[in-house]
Amino acid sequence: MLILPGKQGILKVTLLIHCPDQSGIISSVTRFFHERGGNILYLDQHVDQEAGIFFMRLECDFEEKRPQLSHLKAEVQTHLQEKYQMEWELYEEGVKPRMAIFVSRYNHCLYDLLSRFRSGELEVEIPFIVSNHDTLQHIADQFEIPYHHIPVSREFKAAAEEKQLDLLNSHAIDFIVLARYMQIVTPRLIDAFPHRIINIHHSFLPAFAGAKPYHAAFERGVKIIGATSHYVTEELDAGPIIEQDVTAVSHVHTVKDFIAKGRDLEKIVLSRAVKLHIARKTMVYNNKTVIFS
Amino acid sequence: MLILPGKQGILKVTLLIHCPDQSGIISSVTRFFHERGGNILYLDQHVDQEAGIFFMRLECDFEEKRPQLSHLKAEVQTHLQEKYQMEWELYEEGVKPRMAIFVSRYNHCLYDLLSRFRSGELEVEIPFIVSNHDTLQHIADQFEIPYHHIPVSREFKAAAEEKQLDLLNSHAIDFIVLARYMQIVTPRLIDAFPHRIINIHHSFLPAFAGAKPYHAAFERGVKIIGATSHYVTEELDAGPIIEQDVTAVSHVHTVKDFIAKGRDLEKIVLSRAVKLHIARKTMVYNNKTVIFS
Amino acid sequence: MLILPGKQGILKVTLLIHCPDQSGIISSVTRFFHERGGNILYLDQHVDQEAGIFFMRLECDFEEKRPQLSHLKAEVQTHLQEKYQMEWELYEEGVKPRMAIFVSRYNHCLYDLLSRFRSGELEVEIPFIVSNHDTLQHIADQFEIPYHHIPVSREFKAAAEEKQLDLLNSHAIDFIVLARYMQIVTPRLIDAFPHRIINIHHSFLPAFAGAKPYHAAFERGVKIIGATSHYVTEELDAGPIIEQDVTAVSHVHTVKDFIAKGRDLEKIVLSRAVKLHIARKTMVYNNKTVIFS
Amino acid sequence: MLILPGKQGILKVTLLIHCPDQSGIISSVTRFFHERGGNILYLDQHVDQEAGIFFMRLECDFEEKRPQLSHLKAEVQTHLQEKYQMEWELYEEGVKPRMAIFVSRYNHCLYDLLSRFRSGELEVEIPFIVSNHDTLQHIADQFEIPYHHIPVSREFKAAAEEKQLDLLNSHAIDFIVLARYMQIVTPRLIDAFPHRIINIHHSFLPAFAGAKPYHAAFERGVKIIGATSHYVTEELDAGPIIEQDVTAVSHVHTVKDFIAKGRDLEKIVLSRAVKLHIARKTMVYNNKTVIFS
Repeated sequence: MLILPGKQGILKVTLLIHCPDQSGIISSVTRFFHERGGNILYLDQHVDQEAGIFFMRLECDFEEKRPQLSHLKAEVQTHLQEKYQMEWELYEEGVKPRMAIFVSRYNHCLYDLLSRFRSGELEVEIPFIVSNHDTLQHIADQFEIPYHHIPVSREFKAAAEEKQLDLLNSHAIDFIVLARYMQIVTPRLIDAFPHRIINIHHSFLPAFAGAKPYHAAFERGVKIIGATSHYVTEELDAGPIIEQDVTAVSHVHTVKDFIAKGRDLEKIVLSRAVKLHIARKTMVYNNKTVIFS
Repeated sequence: MLILPGKQGILKVTLLIHCPDQSGIISSVTRFFHERGGNILYLDQHVDQEAGIFFMRLECDFEEKRPQLSHLKAEVQTHLQEKYQMEWELYEEGVKPRMAIFVSRYNHCLYDLLSRFRSGELEVEIPFIVSNHDTLQHIADQFEIPYHHIPVSREFKAAAEEKQLDLLNSHAIDFIVLARYMQIVTPRLIDAFPHRIINIHHSFLPAFAGAKPYHAAFERGVKIIGATSHYVTEELDAGPIIEQDVTAVSHVHTVKDFIAKGRDLEKIVLSRAVKLHIARKTMVYNNKTVIFS
Repeated sequence: MLILPGKQGILKVTLLIHCPDQSGIISSVTRFFHERGGNILYLDQHVDQEAGIFFMRLECDFEEKRPQLSHLKAEVQTHLQEKYQMEWELYEEGVKPRMAIFVSRYNHCLYDLLSRFRSGELEVEIPFIVSNHDTLQHIADQFEIPYHHIPVSREFKAAAEEKQLDLLNSHAIDFIVLARYMQIVTPRLIDAFPHRIINIHHSFLPAFAGAKPYHAAFERGVKIIGATSHYVTEELDAGPIIEQDVTAVSHVHTVKDFIAKGRDLEKIVLSRAVKLHIARKTMVYNNKTVIFS
Repeated sequence: MLILPGKQGILKVTLLIHCPDQSGIISSVTRFFHERGGNILYLDQHVDQEAGIFFMRLECDFEEKRPQLSHLKAEVQTHLQEKYQMEWELYEEGVKPRMAIFVSRYNHCLYDLLSRFRSGELEVEIPFIVSNHDTLQHIADQFEIPYHHIPVSREFKAAAEEKQLDLLNSHAIDFIVLARYMQIVTPRLIDAFPHRIINIHHSFLPAFAGAKPYHAAFERGVKIIGATSHYVTEELDAGPIIEQDVTAVSHVHTVKDFIAKGRDLEKIVLSRAVKLHIARKTMVYNNKTVIFS
């Protein structure tokens, strides 16, 4: 992994927590960091009253004495995890996650992601692009990202999946972005990347799940169309929603117009989800997301 | 019917047309009015290329020589209808349509409609309100509109429908607004008012049709909720959509928050649909609407 | 004041804080409540990095031992205020703020506020309505709220203001809502209700401040119009913005259409601001607001 | 010019008209085309009642007998222009307009335009890009579009303008897109391309015209930010508005966040304006636009 140092040796971390709700958690966690010389820069919490679950996102830096990250993690485990039955993740700022992009034939999301990447807007590494077609090879070339053409046929689906997993593992990929990848992702891949595969669906889910949503929306005569980014789960187009947006349409618009308008939605909604994921602002539970500000 | 004269004796009409698309319609229709001394104030047309249907909305006034409305209608029939196999409606400006309101227990849409009515924003007559509960009687009283409490039980459903139809007929009602009326409207009523019953559904259709859409939306974890006004057809929540709008929600919102936010959407989206209908800006075909500007 | 008890004797409080940012505040505040048997239900904080100011909103209940509110306030002063140079407010849940409404001739915001009030959507007392016209007396009557007609002429402006202040004081009013009140509020009134007068301006501020914003927007040919609710300060239409919303317009819309579309924006945006204020979710600094979720 | 033939030899034209409003125009124009064998595919008209101006956009094809374009233009002049004092433009479908892009250092609008161009979404020719910096040369190279670096200093402003005009003329440019070009365009250039220079301004005009709009919006504490595309006129940021859009912000967002969110608005709003212009759906009068559907 590439480590980008922050200010001269300062450690800055992001902590994500969820656990059964109970009294005193915020107080305990903030005291934990305060006692270790940490300065809390940001804290947001959420309680799902119905489910009785507590969520927290906290950013903290250590200006004076810089703890070892491994030591800090051990202390979280000893002093917080056990007491509160916490599930937690602790990230060090400056460590860029490694993102793989899967595409098929549509190029607008790919162009958008790569443009943002090249502009420094996305703080990730992009070791490669995978596609079941060779159609977009030239864009990968244009942006100088390796492009792996792995055809997916019914017959060789398992072999294709194997190749994908090899690539993902050998490049230590952290998460996958399906940038209009028109194949159904297999359970094996989903299991390997739980809540770490982001898809963009070209409708306002749960309306028009499945194939050809713009055609279905046109047929139904809706006055607003949308796009939805979500984490992929085994049930098609039913995973936890990260971000949605919509745009107005009217009777003057054809299916072709829906598709053109939808392209803009898709690329914006996908990039917002990717940015939220990179910034560790998303948590998943009960097939829903908590999106921190 | 109450006739509000326009400018000193000037006849102003709105014509709505649909027919199989073919060459020369616009030219024929505009010439038709021009030759009769009409001045076209507004013309909007739409062609559904796929279905091969032509739609037009036209406003025209007659400043100099005022034709008889009945004579004008006869001429449309003779000179336009037959040639183009048109279906058409011709409305005289200043004739207020007569609107019945159906409610149950929720009051926000009723308050909103009656406030707009009293302010002169809705150019209609409202002869009465019907409800299956007596809960909102006081609001009807407050705004001095007759309120008919017609309970609807499974046992007496047919009798209730009979009473409703009697009221609707005896008051020469033109169209019905279901302002959060929580009963399923019967086919007999729908047949009596084809594409003239406007409902507000508290979701972004076709997502979350049926009961408890806010609960379903919360359960699914959507990031945007909506409301949809549509003409009632026999299939529940599946009629031609007139207007939709949405608002953002997040994990911090409970079902109760969804309901509160939704109330504002519902009343705005319903009132827009009612205003479009009153202004004769809606046409229905293939279970969709054309909404003229 | 009317006290609505919460759950059987449970004290629930909302604390709003702002102070110079420094390390350890969140930890100290949460420990403060934890040590007194409080259970933190909600915490949101914000740091304006540039201005170096820390903001917090915290909801806490005391299930087991119920402290005296006055005692709790004294302890906040002793243990928190001095150490951190805090400015703070502590509210007890169930105490409804007292809200006066000022109107002129437009009725849509008044209708909307009173309908919400009657429906139980606004947790306030509304002791009276003030107007410089008698135009809307009938609406006050309809909703059975006292209506004081206090004409405001150039000559008798000071006397009118005196009457307004008398009413506001004698009814122990907490905050004022200008529901399209078309008079400029005087510095004396503003000083008496600092950041406690909410206005709705019918434009997307800072565009089109001052008179006739819809005419100005039409003249400029904008494609979107808006409404803005803000706290009133001495500079006209320049106070801290609470809430804004917009709607699309086009060349087909006349000034009259802008006004009609704007009415819906105005009432929704005003009511959102009023609800945020009632829920103590707004804080003001540097002529801006922090709006907690 | 490159001519893309439509369906086998069929002539399809778009006519834009504006003239003083009077009775009979629509009838005359539609009859004109009908008599010449034209089939009207689309007609939209607008009357600015206040200004007394009539606008029309009409699409028409000639399936059977294909007229000469020059002959058709002559006939419009003879039979329509004189009678109605029309100003008009007649475009042949399939003739791609030639568009020059001006940029400075920001790359997001450039990436977006070039991606759309390469995807076939923009039906234009792009003979070259001009910039006052060499910063974005690599993007031009990536997309294989000639890039002319023409530095603009106070001293050599006139010379730079001369070079720009030479390029524009020698490549027969039809219109210019300022894709975040951070120089003020000179009157000479504006005169040479009247209502044919499209700019994107990073605010919701008329709010925050001029430099650093995001900083000004942050300072003011607005809750919504926007972007505006408009035709360039001599008065800075005051030309006819083509398209606007907005997005919500809150106190949690820094100026840097405003800028990041704004980038997405800017590129979408600019591309919509460019597409409307290319489709000949814009007309300008009284410093406003009519945007046809």
